[in-house]
Amino acid sequence: MTTVTFEKLQAFIHAAMVALGLPDRDAAVVAALMAQADLQGSDGHGVSRLPQYARRIRAGGFNVKPDIRVVREQASTALVNGDNGMGHLVMSRAAAIAIEKARTSGIGWVNAQFSNHAGPASLYARMPLAHDMIGLYFAVGNANHLPPWGGLDMLLSTNPIAAAIPAGEEQPIVLDMATTVAAYGKVRTKALRGESMPVGWMIDREGKPLTDPKRAEEGMLLPLGGMEAGYKGYGLAMIIGLLAGTLGGAAMGKDVIDFNHDDDSVTNTGQAICAINIAAFGDVATFKAAVDTLARDIRGSARMPGVERIAIPGERSEATRIARGRDGIPIAPALKCGLDQLAQELGIAALG
Amino acid sequence: MTTVTFEKLQAFIHAAMVALGLPDRDAAVVAALMAQADLQGSDGHGVSRLPQYARRIRAGGFNVKPDIRVVREQASTALVNGDNGMGHLVMSRAAAIAIEKARTSGIGWVNAQFSNHAGPASLYARMPLAHDMIGLYFAVGNANHLPPWGGLDMLLSTNPIAAAIPAGEEQPIVLDMATTVAAYGKVRTKALRGESMPVGWMIDREGKPLTDPKRAEEGMLLPLGGMEAGYKGYGLAMIIGLLAGTLGGAAMGKDVIDFNHDDDSVTNTGQAICAINIAAFGDVATFKAAVDTLARDIRGSARMPGVERIAIPGERSEATRIARGRDGIPIAPALKCGLDQLAQELGIAALG
Repeated sequence: MTTVTFEKLQAFIHAAMVALGLPDRDAAVVAALMAQADLQGSDGHGVSRLPQYARRIRAGGFNVKPDIRVVREQASTALVNGDNGMGHLVMSRAAAIAIEKARTSGIGWVNAQFSNHAGPASLYARMPLAHDMIGLYFAVGNANHLPPWGGLDMLLSTNPIAAAIPAGEEQPIVLDMATTVAAYGKVRTKALRGESMPVGWMIDREGKPLTDPKRAEEGMLLPLGGMEAGYKGYGLAMIIGLLAGTLGGAAMGKDVIDFNHDDDSVTNTGQAICAINIAAFGDVATFKAAVDTLARDIRGSARMPGVERIAIPGERSEATRIARGRDGIPIAPALKCGLDQLAQELGIAALG
Repeated sequence: MTTVTFEKLQAFIHAAMVALGLPDRDAAVVAALMAQADLQGSDGHGVSRLPQYARRIRAGGFNVKPDIRVVREQASTALVNGDNGMGHLVMSRAAAIAIEKARTSGIGWVNAQFSNHAGPASLYARMPLAHDMIGLYFAVGNANHLPPWGGLDMLLSTNPIAAAIPAGEEQPIVLDMATTVAAYGKVRTKALRGESMPVGWMIDREGKPLTDPKRAEEGMLLPLGGMEAGYKGYGLAMIIGLLAGTLGGAAMGKDVIDFNHDDDSVTNTGQAICAINIAAFGDVATFKAAVDTLARDIRGSARMPGVERIAIPGERSEATRIARGRDGIPIAPALKCGLDQLAQELGIAALG
């Protein structure tokens, strides 16, 4: 397993994006966010996507010089047209607008249309944190792997939700979850690593467990709740898709493009970000102290037999961020091979 | 099993609330919402709560003449102090404010503090629908039955989320779900009916399945995701509690009062409601047509073997609303007995 520093990874992605035609400033934004994804352990959403992004850019599926613009606006809402630019650029812009609106009117909610895959939801939900705001993020996933509850037609994606809540002395509480038992990115990661999936992630069309990630195309993800209460995960996936996609005039349901198998169609991806200004509801320090107390009470809970530690949402990502910042970011052999090949094609220095 | 009409049930609750000291207009609001809960099949949140509400009012645990007021406000947000009034009154008021703010600035988000149990989340999420708005509702549950993932201390409640999305010709899409596999109200209903619970709803402190609802006090609810991915349901419960409780200065975590065992402490219940004005993002008719198409595509999906019909979230409640409007609302024998006793104590006519 190769390991690389955050800085080297970021520089590599930056160079690749410039070679692919992005303006230097945009390439820097995309590289920083993609490298952050790897740093925090979101392996299915970081540099592992680079070969696919490159393929799509070269096929004309991304607009490398998009005119990202607000097309509709009210005091606390906006609709951003991403002009088919990379999602990282569109949603960074959307987050900045949401934060600004929350500053002046208490809350800001921004939908994006004609956006694209933007990496891990938590990256954007975390953006309001520095402004003493709560961040919420909703997205339509970029491939439908989820049927409705009881159905076989894959009309829904893993539509994730992320939420980030600032704390005082504690780390912020950050939830980032697909509304399926497992995100499809995790399935891809298992495949890259040559590992099998646990029972309960996917089923085949007869409803039997599917554990070989290389056979993922034959199967369907199970919605959160699994065989027992999967109608809840299905309902959440549908609501999130309506909020992130339909509300902003973006693709949802059968209109969603499977961007793993289509490099050139405009995806019209939809995402939504909401920033909530804590000061609009009360004293910020009091709020943060209450979050600290909650985190400590939860961490201090008596534990079930065999449990070593109670985790707060976001804690594992934070630990990974620290560990990989110190020890480097591991790059799986199959991925390294793909990145070396890409570097050669683009005429840039190899990673590492 | 006794059955009663919606009108008779509403009139009975109204009379009980007036006898308990609520002003006539407030009693009417509470009665309408409680009876609507039963009409739509939310049996754990309708008239089955009346004996408990009565006990709490007589113990001084509810303020029957609250001064419900906005204590902090921005263009698109408000914090409402419910003055320990019944939650139905507080959240009806909060919903009206959220709708008004969404009309003028695109979105309205209102938190309540010093509120109380308000019945089914969907009642409030549905209120923006008539204004061509999306409704979102979050609440801190009124008793902690959920430990953190891996823990034993019940620091969290079933913290529900509800969302209501207007459609055109189709019924609105309405999701209303506890972030546990089963809501505690469903456990109570099973107990009232003398039925046992399915495996997977609750576990005991050794982690073994608990299926006798009369032993519910000895057990813990499982978070959505169950044994497999319960850390997601735990994370959702925590985030919803922070949004609905902590953000508005209401109780969360260890401060939550178990109102099933405490009739007189001020609960400082927190709820939040958000109204999103569809017109702020695009053409309303286009949005509704897209929701119709999605609902039809999903309903028309090929089905797994043995599945008769694909359900859209909210469909079952709507069907129950129609069936019970036609055939009457069933009242279980144990509940009927409790209501007859209450009627006698209050000097009002018995139900039915």
